[in-house]
Amino acid sequence: MQSVAEYVDSLVCSACGAAFAPAQRHTTCSHCGKPLLVRYRIEALRGRFRPEVLPGRARSLWRYAEVLPVPPDPRWSLGEGWTPLLPQPRLGRALGLPKLYVKDESLNPGGSFKARGLAVAVAAAAARGVQQVGVASAGNAAGALALYAARLGLRAVLFLPEETPEPAVWECQIAGAEVHRVPGTIAEAGAAFEAYRQEHPDIFSVATLREPYRVEGKKTMGYELFEQLGGRLPDVILYPTGGGTGLIGMWKAFEEMEALGWIGPERPRMVAVQAAGCAPIVRAFQEGRETAAYWEDAQTIAAGLRVPKALGDFLILRVLRESQGTAVAVSDADIQAAMRRWAQTEGLLAAPEGAATLAALIQLQEAGWVHAEETVVLFNTATAHKYPAVVRQVLRQAGGPV
Amino acid sequence: MQSVAEYVDSLVCSACGAAFAPAQRHTTCSHCGKPLLVRYRIEALRGRFRPEVLPGRARSLWRYAEVLPVPPDPRWSLGEGWTPLLPQPRLGRALGLPKLYVKDESLNPGGSFKARGLAVAVAAAAARGVQQVGVASAGNAAGALALYAARLGLRAVLFLPEETPEPAVWECQIAGAEVHRVPGTIAEAGAAFEAYRQEHPDIFSVATLREPYRVEGKKTMGYELFEQLGGRLPDVILYPTGGGTGLIGMWKAFEEMEALGWIGPERPRMVAVQAAGCAPIVRAFQEGRETAAYWEDAQTIAAGLRVPKALGDFLILRVLRESQGTAVAVSDADIQAAMRRWAQTEGLLAAPEGAATLAALIQLQEAGWVHAEETVVLFNTATAHKYPAVVRQVLRQAGGPV
Ligand SMILES: Cc1ncc(COP(=O)(O)O)c(C=O)c1O
Ligand SMILES: Cc1ncc(COP(=O)(O)O)c(C=O)c1O
Repeated sequence: MQSVAEYVDSLVCSACGAAFAPAQRHTTCSHCGKPLLVRYRIEALRGRFRPEVLPGRARSLWRYAEVLPVPPDPRWSLGEGWTPLLPQPRLGRALGLPKLYVKDESLNPGGSFKARGLAVAVAAAAARGVQQVGVASAGNAAGALALYAARLGLRAVLFLPEETPEPAVWECQIAGAEVHRVPGTIAEAGAAFEAYRQEHPDIFSVATLREPYRVEGKKTMGYELFEQLGGRLPDVILYPTGGGTGLIGMWKAFEEMEALGWIGPERPRMVAVQAAGCAPIVRAFQEGRETAAYWEDAQTIAAGLRVPKALGDFLILRVLRESQGTAVAVSDADIQAAMRRWAQTEGLLAAPEGAATLAALIQLQEAGWVHAEETVVLFNTATAHKYPAVVRQVLRQAGGPV
Repeated sequence: MQSVAEYVDSLVCSACGAAFAPAQRHTTCSHCGKPLLVRYRIEALRGRFRPEVLPGRARSLWRYAEVLPVPPDPRWSLGEGWTPLLPQPRLGRALGLPKLYVKDESLNPGGSFKARGLAVAVAAAAARGVQQVGVASAGNAAGALALYAARLGLRAVLFLPEETPEPAVWECQIAGAEVHRVPGTIAEAGAAFEAYRQEHPDIFSVATLREPYRVEGKKTMGYELFEQLGGRLPDVILYPTGGGTGLIGMWKAFEEMEALGWIGPERPRMVAVQAAGCAPIVRAFQEGRETAAYWEDAQTIAAGLRVPKALGDFLILRVLRESQGTAVAVSDADIQAAMRRWAQTEGLLAAPEGAATLAALIQLQEAGWVHAEETVVLFNTATAHKYPAVVRQVLRQAGGPV
């Protein structure tokens, strides 16, 4: 098994710039503890890896093999990525945004965009001899890890908040993973996982930004947007932000695409969407800070947004500012209304996290922050089917039969 | 809105051969009541619609536009079709079948393959001025209909057996459809729907084979297999069979592909998989009959296979015989074991209907009916997330924490 793809140059610390060899197992920077990112030999790819080579390639994120850290192998894939970018004509008309799209990540294995990061991270770990993987997760990442671990024959150990929606828990269990439920948020689940790892050091952690490869899987969303919009980027991207790998990943993709000569210095305005009951990034953005303080008493129906503190907060905030973007908090009530509205106007089964981006767009549109001629992309990061309790609430409030 | 795609010739009765004009609204044959199928001007397509034109086309079933009945329109699509064909190396090794694949239809909008047929049928109906659509369904077809009706702005009226798994019911409700729950199987739900339509004749029925276009959406599974296997068909296809549109549709695709000059007269052996508690096709196949008798007291956890009588039974049985295929019944216990095994060995979240194909393959392999060098394709027709009660049972039996 070849462990490092052809064009990988090195792993580089996102904070102090220290560089590391990619063939070894790495977690965070051994100097400063911050996230490592993969650097490619982009010069060698310029002119050779062009958008014109893409049509006809794999129907998965592995179509971007030249800028992925492990060589593609169909035995490792569950069909992750290459999700549809759907025009939203009826919703767009109502909002005065004729060029409105949704990137529907619910059409990923396990029903969430977490498949992207974990497909790549598990493949990279297995290629480096890892046999046991683990994560603390709001649910979807754990589920995805369980599926890819099963696919590659690794053992998976998962720590989940007690309130994790049941389908994510089942996903882990039916795939044969070891599941621990922990009272509190993902912060407490993360602490329990770290304590457990003290006694089981063989378990490799694929926690958000604690290893360099999940971001590589996520960044493919950025490449796909470019390809699916016919060779350009949208003006505005709204993304539900917990740990932030999606935003950070797409930003990295845009930088690579500029270095490759696909785009110029232009960038979409990036909008981090959070739940009002857990909005550390929104607060830090509004206060002009470079990092975000721990959010006490995090509460929201959007389980994936219940992240009181993100390791990559400084990267997320940097992306929002450099892109002239913003950060928006939305209430649980607005999320529920958006789930219903989206299903009824466009037939989209949005997860609460995805629906949060629609709720945020409504706010931004009312504030005049988006304009009629702009191309706007919402991210639906998972299917509503992974949130039965929330769906039940939405239907109950609507007074319809449940 | 152009209602008929360029290469559509006519609608032809599958039993008596009568032909009808495609621009009008049609249900079944007005002479004999049997299903109508779409005929294309294949001569005009020969040499022009070739496999070489496909790479780079839409990431949905609309990539086969020349052999679809309505012109593609991204405003109608939710990203249906073009699902992954995944090699199953670990399962294949265990079963002595190195060329084993799964066509994972769970990566469709709403989580089931029913999206294919309904995407096409709803588009065709809307293009003919229909404003209200309805169906009686085991669940997934109703959910898919609700989503596409919302997407196109049509009203949907749905009749579901009381025992329908909840996620399918929610899907209908959150998309704003009118839902009626009926005691009994889909047979009773279908009767209730027909009674309702007596009073509401404006509701157009998209029930299985009661209009000509759902089959057209389903047949694209056959085109995709050919394309994804690099230009050939598998030796054996196992398909979970209720109403049978999938089998009938793929068979129609193979006939078109031969007429187009893509393949010769060779065909995969087609295997209809049913649940032991509702196996009318298996019984009729074993008894050498041309049609199947109504199955009394239908019971199975695989809701989509609880179809006591299929309108297209004679077509299904013909396909099985012409292809040198067979029909296999599997127990609910074997289905549950297969769900668990599939998730644990390949990370696949199979619906009970999909898992039935794995259970059937195990039987066929033990009986020596499949051979090591053969390419075998299992169909997972939906995600396990649409069957929470079944998943709970599977986990409970395994004694794991639930
Ligand atoms: C459905 C969903 N959306 C969004 C998020 C947040 O994603 P990120 O960690 O990339 O910010 C999560 C994380 O769990 C999630 O499950
Ligand atoms: C998941 C699933 N698999 C298989 C079937 C049977 O499909 P068909 O009617 O094409 O035979 C159904 C029908 O409801 C279904 O929902």
